[in-house]
Amino acid sequence: MVNQTGLELRSLVKPDGALELSLVRLPIPTPKDDEVIVRVEAAPINPSDLGLLLAAADVRAATRSGEGAQTVVTAPIAPAALRAFAGRVGKSMAVGNEGAGVVTSAGASPEAQALLGKTVSLFAGGMYGQFRTSKAADCLVLPAGITAEDGASAFVNPLTALGMVETARMEGHKGLVHTAAASNLRGDGVPLVNIVRSPAQVQILRDLGTEHIVNSAQPSFRDDLVAALKATGATLAFDAIGGGKLAGQILNSMEAVAAGASAKTYNMYGSSVHKQVYIYGTLDPGLIELTRGFGMAWGVGGWLLFNFLAKVGPEVEARLKARVANEIKTTFASHYTRTISLLEALDPDVIAAYSRRATGEKFLISPSFAVD
Amino acid sequence: MVNQTGLELRSLVKPDGALELSLVRLPIPTPKDDEVIVRVEAAPINPSDLGLLLAAADVRAATRSGEGAQTVVTAPIAPAALRAFAGRVGKSMAVGNEGAGVVTSAGASPEAQALLGKTVSLFAGGMYGQFRTSKAADCLVLPAGITAEDGASAFVNPLTALGMVETARMEGHKGLVHTAAASNLRGDGVPLVNIVRSPAQVQILRDLGTEHIVNSAQPSFRDDLVAALKATGATLAFDAIGGGKLAGQILNSMEAVAAGASAKTYNMYGSSVHKQVYIYGTLDPGLIELTRGFGMAWGVGGWLLFNFLAKVGPEVEARLKARVANEIKTTFASHYTRTISLLEALDPDVIAAYSRRATGEKFLISPSFAVD
Repeated sequence: MVNQTGLELRSLVKPDGALELSLVRLPIPTPKDDEVIVRVEAAPINPSDLGLLLAAADVRAATRSGEGAQTVVTAPIAPAALRAFAGRVGKSMAVGNEGAGVVTSAGASPEAQALLGKTVSLFAGGMYGQFRTSKAADCLVLPAGITAEDGASAFVNPLTALGMVETARMEGHKGLVHTAAASNLRGDGVPLVNIVRSPAQVQILRDLGTEHIVNSAQPSFRDDLVAALKATGATLAFDAIGGGKLAGQILNSMEAVAAGASAKTYNMYGSSVHKQVYIYGTLDPGLIELTRGFGMAWGVGGWLLFNFLAKVGPEVEARLKARVANEIKTTFASHYTRTISLLEALDPDVIAAYSRRATGEKFLISPSFAVD
Repeated sequence: MVNQTGLELRSLVKPDGALELSLVRLPIPTPKDDEVIVRVEAAPINPSDLGLLLAAADVRAATRSGEGAQTVVTAPIAPAALRAFAGRVGKSMAVGNEGAGVVTSAGASPEAQALLGKTVSLFAGGMYGQFRTSKAADCLVLPAGITAEDGASAFVNPLTALGMVETARMEGHKGLVHTAAASNLRGDGVPLVNIVRSPAQVQILRDLGTEHIVNSAQPSFRDDLVAALKATGATLAFDAIGGGKLAGQILNSMEAVAAGASAKTYNMYGSSVHKQVYIYGTLDPGLIELTRGFGMAWGVGGWLLFNFLAKVGPEVEARLKARVANEIKTTFASHYTRTISLLEALDPDVIAAYSRRATGEKFLISPSFAVD
């Protein structure tokens, strides 16, 4: 048989501090009763994939050896960054949070058999490979006429966007702030303040018709933010950056609005309006620095889609996924600027391009493209 | 009538950056139907009173003028600290979160009339004065045989301690960490880790029979903390300090335990165990610095007794208060090292003493002591 093995991209942090990217050839397993085998046709490179894939290595110093499926790329990791990856040293990691493809074989159970030949989306990890085993129950079956490319990004960005709005509603916030441009985030009736870091990002959001855009690189940032918070009533923020002073600045600006709105008398503990920042990304892995001026009703915390879904339970998860499937060509449509093969994913020039996380650029890996 | 006026301690931040403490003489109001007038006999100086009372002024540079009820103390506030008090400049603030005394007059309602002559505790603010008006419903009637001195500290420390344990239970934590020594905090079956900053504090807690004590000034702090967290399963901390790196160190140590216990496979997002630090004090008002190494399941936030009580509602509040009233001479007994008059509270040497917040020292103001 031709398809008894499949290639899979692997990321390895070596004890000497080098990152090594390579392809491994693995036998395609026989699915258990409740499992299916998906031939992966499309898997996006999301910012959330880059941490595991590149381990903060200096990709400008990447070097390549070998040919075809034997290609190996090596890049150095700075010793300070290496500490954060101690838990994965010597472990060859499969990469790729999400993707989509066609079910090519299925276990004996009726649920698995029903998926044979169907195009499905998966949020399973290890999607940068030609075949992926999955529980039948974890497959999101795409509506008729939807391709694997259409459905490749059905989870991370759409569910994160829906999860943010759901969190705002669950926790009783009237509006929300989002840092770093996100094309997929709509408020669904919850007013939204976008904090970006450049005029180019301001323009992209303006062109999308976004109302409240604040540029943190402007000297008027604090005043602009307070005005937008006042206009929207936002007391919740989702921050993709993490490190630095931004989370504290957002809290202090929210408190300025809350205290200004309610404080006829001085309260040394600040307003009783709860102000919350969730950090869901790590664009800056450095120190989080909070300058306290936001009273006592505040919180900063991590937000992770997996943990959110576990918290809200299967019913809410199913509702959100059904919405994504229905709107995969409209609200949640993804646009890719470049589609690459597994082999191209190991090309130092291509790595340099996708590791830039440039606004408006999005890469798709198509593992079914020929490698050798 | 002799008692038509009463003295009240006031704290004023002047526009030039000076703190001014003085006494004002006010008419004793006639209570409304649902109100009572309490002759305050005892009000503690808690750490949480010092912020409003002293406004971070340099009390070593305090100077006094005037005599008796006309005494005025002045102390400079550093310009950097002054910014935090902008909201109270020019406003003469009454001080003293809690205290106890005897109801000397009551409004027409049966609830108010029933309190006449009773010894009650109040959590009303403005307790550093000879008379305090209160809603009858806000009075905690002390059991027979309990004096105002016994009941003066019935709210802040006891309810904070009970509120911490209640929070741990509500949010599903198995154990909790407390920073800065707190004599009133018992775990009530929830295992407790105490983080202190000196051998003297370690000894005080050892003498109280406390099991898990960690000294953050020791080089072995991190290892000691991890061991104590492992032994107790604590994933929640209440931190009185605020500024600096401690909150982040606690989260990182909790994550080390959580990841060590569960991580057979590497997870770049860390463990899914939620780790929480609540900052409820401001011993260090500086930057909160969080060094991220604690995954994505974490939170840091403010915790304030008022906000906690508002969140849990009147039923829980009544239950906690009833417990305090029942155990005011045992579990929640307070010991005062010095009782002072309102006038002594304006003595620079006495101010220097009570502003030290020294472990084991606690001051009580008795506003009924003669002033002039």
